[in-house]
Amino acid sequence: MAGPLGEFQLIGRFFDRGPARKALLGIGDDCALLGAPACGEGLAIATDMLVGGRHVFDDVEPEALGHKGLAVNLSDLAAMGARPLAFTLALALPQADEAWLRGFSRGMFALADRFDCELIGGDTTRGPLNVCITVIGQVPAGSALRRDGAQPGDDLWVSGELGAAAFAVAERQAGRPLPADHPARVRLDRPEPRVALGLALRHLARAAIDVSDGLAGDLGHLLERSRVGARLVWPAVPVAPALRGLPGARRMQLALAGGDDYELLFAAAPENRVAIEALGPRLGLQLSRIGAFDAGDSMRLVDERDRPIAFEGHGFDHFA
Amino acid sequence: MAGPLGEFQLIGRFFDRGPARKALLGIGDDCALLGAPACGEGLAIATDMLVGGRHVFDDVEPEALGHKGLAVNLSDLAAMGARPLAFTLALALPQADEAWLRGFSRGMFALADRFDCELIGGDTTRGPLNVCITVIGQVPAGSALRRDGAQPGDDLWVSGELGAAAFAVAERQAGRPLPADHPARVRLDRPEPRVALGLALRHLARAAIDVSDGLAGDLGHLLERSRVGARLVWPAVPVAPALRGLPGARRMQLALAGGDDYELLFAAAPENRVAIEALGPRLGLQLSRIGAFDAGDSMRLVDERDRPIAFEGHGFDHFA
Repeated sequence: MAGPLGEFQLIGRFFDRGPARKALLGIGDDCALLGAPACGEGLAIATDMLVGGRHVFDDVEPEALGHKGLAVNLSDLAAMGARPLAFTLALALPQADEAWLRGFSRGMFALADRFDCELIGGDTTRGPLNVCITVIGQVPAGSALRRDGAQPGDDLWVSGELGAAAFAVAERQAGRPLPADHPARVRLDRPEPRVALGLALRHLARAAIDVSDGLAGDLGHLLERSRVGARLVWPAVPVAPALRGLPGARRMQLALAGGDDYELLFAAAPENRVAIEALGPRLGLQLSRIGAFDAGDSMRLVDERDRPIAFEGHGFDHFA
Repeated sequence: MAGPLGEFQLIGRFFDRGPARKALLGIGDDCALLGAPACGEGLAIATDMLVGGRHVFDDVEPEALGHKGLAVNLSDLAAMGARPLAFTLALALPQADEAWLRGFSRGMFALADRFDCELIGGDTTRGPLNVCITVIGQVPAGSALRRDGAQPGDDLWVSGELGAAAFAVAERQAGRPLPADHPARVRLDRPEPRVALGLALRHLARAAIDVSDGLAGDLGHLLERSRVGARLVWPAVPVAPALRGLPGARRMQLALAGGDDYELLFAAAPENRVAIEALGPRLGLQLSRIGAFDAGDSMRLVDERDRPIAFEGHGFDHFA
């Protein structure tokens, strides 16, 4: 019809996919209702907000934004070793643009369906672009991968490759935007939450965090919560291929302090080394041992012969 | 210190109140962890987003905004008959202003503590003012007050008085802002979630909704979900004292189509009438029987002698 799309039509057309499958009650009431999780299971809950013009460029494809809004939340579940269950979506939009909404919901639901994570409720309103998703997962309470479990002597691991998303941001800011299908752009726009890895690590890792603000900054959080230090071996860090031609300092900055990687950084006892090495091929995901935890209280960046390397970068801080 | 407040300092200073009490793990990890609810209990989940300049005037006191951001979510739990358990906060702010943050967190936690609802996680970022809260409550799955349970012959009830918040908005828009301590401003800025009423109604009401978009609009949602009609007796509607001097059509517009009341509208069998009447004095809250559900498919507004009254208003739609 010619008229503007109303709030309830908008929900009905793009977000309400009929009766809930996993929830007892989904979209359309004051609250959603979830049954109690299975015996011994606890709930893991995370929330992330993406702001237009800040976390996402204003011209981002709506389908990519729908993907990313959910992906960054699923990444938090992955870092906890939790299995995705359900999510809510609060969405502020400058206007109810049907083509935009169609793309956004398609991107979001494509990812949700892959991880069997059900949209159970939300809120839509007019306002500057803002995507706020809260995700709920299940994890046996004692098996959750917290940030505070790393111990001196544990190996330090990271999944995937680092720096590609930060490279795409930097190129864009330098007036050289990468094409949408460039691998670095794909990493920025459509990060892949490492859910299967998180589940596999429940009994192999002692602590984990997802790399959203940069490896150095997020490792810092792990060290602070676990009250340990770590040696990070720069030559062992898996740097994204997109960074290969760059000057050394620039590569280091992007790989260690660039955000938006959404890989998992984790601590595991050395006796689990073989099991973790076997996990990589099974999941089709590179897993790199990039250092070790120690009894110190900070990160030391070193070369392959344990000589210190200077590094001035730090993680991303929204208010710094 | 003179330097700008960083994201993690901000969280530590204004939002992290130490180890979780109810959650297994609270602020500071990738996810919060909640234990499974007690046997037979389900979880009720709602999310609401308040946008600066739209849901709240730009000069709203931060303490009132902190209160309101949580109150509108607790109101959703109340409408479901759920007991508040925990919540997450995602907050976008133009800048990290300490005085603002102190007021906001004070208003939010004062309400949270009254309802024993624990902040378990969140996200803070820079951006146009946006407060997105997701609240989690507990309710025995079979006792939840859904929107779809009203039956023909049920009484139609509403708590409190209607129209005050809408009056405060209208006066502001007409260039005559009410002082902050005017009862109508207090209703707009610091709505009181009817949590105790929701809990008491678990076994007395068959359906409920909170009045956030206006009585007529929210009654419409109840009718649509329950597939019934209703007779609404205008002289029985409890109109806020602030509206008393206004012309009749204006009073009706504000009381029936004004938003932000956060009272509960509910359906109950006539045999529960005495029990519900006894509830009002116990809770210190007016409960008014304002009509009855019938086998129709829409709302009929009538006078005390069942004669139709014309009414053109409708509920609030963010995209209309």
